[in-house]
Amino acid sequence: MEEKSDMGITVKKEKDMPEWYTQVVEKAGLAEFYAPVKGFMVIKPYGYAVWEKIQNYFNQRLKKIGVKNAYFPLLIPEKFFKKEAEHAKGFAPELAWIEQKEEGERLAIRPTSETIMYDSYSRWIRSYRDLPLRINQWCNVLRWEVKQTKLFLRSREFLWQEGHCVYETEEECVKETLLYLDEYKKVAEDLLAIPVMKGVKTEKERFAGAKNTYTVEALMPDGKALQMGTSHNLGQNFAKSFNISFLGRDEKKHIPWQNSWGITTRLIGAMVMVHGDDKGLVLPPKVAPVQIVIIPILFEKTKQQILKKCKELKTALSQKHEVELDDREDYTPGWKFNEWELKGVPIRIELGPRDLEKDQAMLVRRDTGEKTAVKLSDMQKQAQKLLEEIEMNLFSTAQKFLKQNTVEADNWKGFQKAVKEKKLVKAPFCGEVECEDWIKDKTGGATSRLILLDSEKPKAKCIHCDKEAEVFAYFSKSY
Amino acid sequence: MEEKSDMGITVKKEKDMPEWYTQVVEKAGLAEFYAPVKGFMVIKPYGYAVWEKIQNYFNQRLKKIGVKNAYFPLLIPEKFFKKEAEHAKGFAPELAWIEQKEEGERLAIRPTSETIMYDSYSRWIRSYRDLPLRINQWCNVLRWEVKQTKLFLRSREFLWQEGHCVYETEEECVKETLLYLDEYKKVAEDLLAIPVMKGVKTEKERFAGAKNTYTVEALMPDGKALQMGTSHNLGQNFAKSFNISFLGRDEKKHIPWQNSWGITTRLIGAMVMVHGDDKGLVLPPKVAPVQIVIIPILFEKTKQQILKKCKELKTALSQKHEVELDDREDYTPGWKFNEWELKGVPIRIELGPRDLEKDQAMLVRRDTGEKTAVKLSDMQKQAQKLLEEIEMNLFSTAQKFLKQNTVEADNWKGFQKAVKEKKLVKAPFCGEVECEDWIKDKTGGATSRLILLDSEKPKAKCIHCDKEAEVFAYFSKSY
Repeated sequence: MEEKSDMGITVKKEKDMPEWYTQVVEKAGLAEFYAPVKGFMVIKPYGYAVWEKIQNYFNQRLKKIGVKNAYFPLLIPEKFFKKEAEHAKGFAPELAWIEQKEEGERLAIRPTSETIMYDSYSRWIRSYRDLPLRINQWCNVLRWEVKQTKLFLRSREFLWQEGHCVYETEEECVKETLLYLDEYKKVAEDLLAIPVMKGVKTEKERFAGAKNTYTVEALMPDGKALQMGTSHNLGQNFAKSFNISFLGRDEKKHIPWQNSWGITTRLIGAMVMVHGDDKGLVLPPKVAPVQIVIIPILFEKTKQQILKKCKELKTALSQKHEVELDDREDYTPGWKFNEWELKGVPIRIELGPRDLEKDQAMLVRRDTGEKTAVKLSDMQKQAQKLLEEIEMNLFSTAQKFLKQNTVEADNWKGFQKAVKEKKLVKAPFCGEVECEDWIKDKTGGATSRLILLDSEKPKAKCIHCDKEAEVFAYFSKSY
Repeated sequence: MEEKSDMGITVKKEKDMPEWYTQVVEKAGLAEFYAPVKGFMVIKPYGYAVWEKIQNYFNQRLKKIGVKNAYFPLLIPEKFFKKEAEHAKGFAPELAWIEQKEEGERLAIRPTSETIMYDSYSRWIRSYRDLPLRINQWCNVLRWEVKQTKLFLRSREFLWQEGHCVYETEEECVKETLLYLDEYKKVAEDLLAIPVMKGVKTEKERFAGAKNTYTVEALMPDGKALQMGTSHNLGQNFAKSFNISFLGRDEKKHIPWQNSWGITTRLIGAMVMVHGDDKGLVLPPKVAPVQIVIIPILFEKTKQQILKKCKELKTALSQKHEVELDDREDYTPGWKFNEWELKGVPIRIELGPRDLEKDQAMLVRRDTGEKTAVKLSDMQKQAQKLLEEIEMNLFSTAQKFLKQNTVEADNWKGFQKAVKEKKLVKAPFCGEVECEDWIKDKTGGATSRLILLDSEKPKAKCIHCDKEAEVFAYFSKSY
């Protein structure tokens, strides 16, 4: 019997965040890299359960909008990559090709499915009656990263959803491209308790082949931004390349407008970084695979009574919540406390002999560590309330951090200083790719994260070059 | 305005079942082959919705048993295939390899994930406390088929779940291997209304690397059997090859026992074949993406009133069921009737001016075509009852067919005749691979489908060779 879990996190989050992150992801049982195949990860049951929560939440939203799920082939013929030039250029280096088994075209594993889906769309869409067409798929994709991989954040294979819609008009297309962006904001904020900024990407950061890329971005505790989801207005680029057209209400042939949008398993990585602490993971209640863990404090004399009470409590709480009763006998309560804290379960309930006497149990919240005695009869109500409080607390803490670490710069020196201090920096910007390349180079990696959707045109020069600024953009290093 | 859908099925099921099948799958919008990549299919939204119903049903069952979902890498290093000799031999011809991007091992796309999962298991499992380990994954797999492909039934990529469990004892392993088989029987019978026979495979038909393969098999209307799900007792074969061991309760090192089990998107193909008719698809109510379709019969004068009633009806029925109101104005009611019949929706409700007067609607069942007038106030109850009736009727019709087409043979001539007549034939069998090869050869393709679990030893010679029979086996051609 071990008194303390040997699984604890051995570094402070503030001291060495990369190492802290890896330890939390691995030791909490979310995921691990798969040694025999470099850059590939195993999403373990506890991590996959978080992904399923995200899927369920988002599927319900999609159903309301009228988006339908489908499944397209894993392999894409080479010629498709050549149809949309920008898109092809963007993905070429990261493609994994199949050794040819028979005559015919060379095939690559999908890095994203625009090309393969739109080839089908060109046969499916005939008339305005077929529009809007709204399809989504949940699948695995492969991008052969050469950069250092990182669990959930950068791996050669990851899981995601990719939505692909087709519209009669540009107006409708733009409107819905922004609708999906709003949905991503909800996933981040309502579900994962991570505040995000909403905006549009600069030309440099735009999706390969898109007219415009919209993004929601969060700020991680180390001052790096993380893209939480993107929604691309593809304009008519792909429709033209893939011969998608429809007979309009005017009985003439038209080219439709398209968008595509995706979120990935990296959301789980963001959740770990934003909420986790030195004891391990801290799960936002809505995505916690276990929301409440009950730990009986067992002594020989009262064992049966306490187990009975704990089971009753579990039954009552399970009506509304995901509850685990940890009645393993080969571990001490202290060991269990540590383990469930490491795993980030929002609420722990302890029930021992003294609690039994008073018909109460101890309610311990993971985010603050605060402990309260609660009458058993009042437990359902209090647990529910506490889960909501935890949710709000996680969100507002992260929001405070985001505000405190967002600054404005109006000159290059101030800009450089702010980047060095790991801030998200708002600055006037010309918007040009070359200028952004220079900024990245001179700051050791800062790129524009987004331009606010309602950004006014600054009455100033670009923060870096001498040109007139076109927008206010936010810069930082990023994941 | 077209009076009749141009999408109808143009051949009779009985006359040309392969062509009928392809037409139903394509025209009902379940799936289509993806021309640019031979042997790969697109599962369209309507087909994918059926798959999601299967997933939801099965996930709930898995949760009760304590199986957890996870996700393992798509690519498998070559050396893993060499570890379990039989397994390697079985899958080698169907593997798709990746063109090497960097130094290191050659990688193949998973045809199944035993090897990659068990390599992880060998690190995860240390003690009997880690057992039983029960993990499942929903994913895509690739098997480079060279035979003629067929939508859902044989394609190079398909979707499935694969469960992989590890146990302390052989007893526990065998017990749960059969438990998952029972679960597959439930999926087939309770969900898809397809009666199945439960049994064990002969040596010839066993999964590559398994000690025993258990199967549930259904009989298709053309007299071919279709394997609906398999559960493999892997014994200790893989554990030995992948160095999985645990410290037992006796503090000694032991080799654990394993099983693996899977169902695939081919279940959808079976459902099409078993229940479909000359008008198209017939969906069992529990997996129907649309269970009830409401079709208003619109005339100018009563249009608004009728639409209002239909909307009320939709709201009321949607509490318990998946309901669609088809109020499209550019199609006639007759066209819609045909389309929804083609799509196999279990119940159609028609509401026209005369119904409005009588405060009723027509309830039409897809399976028999029977039409009943039902008071609107009684509709919820009647629709619920009818869905249950349809479910039962589909099942019992299929069960009758299975019974009528299962025969016994006690001599070779009778056996050959029965196979020719497309029966499922029960016969005494020696169980040997060579003999089974001969049977297959001489009958133009009949193989043993299963041996009943409680099969007694026949007091007879093998139906084909001169050896003593060991079991009664069921033979037929198969998908």
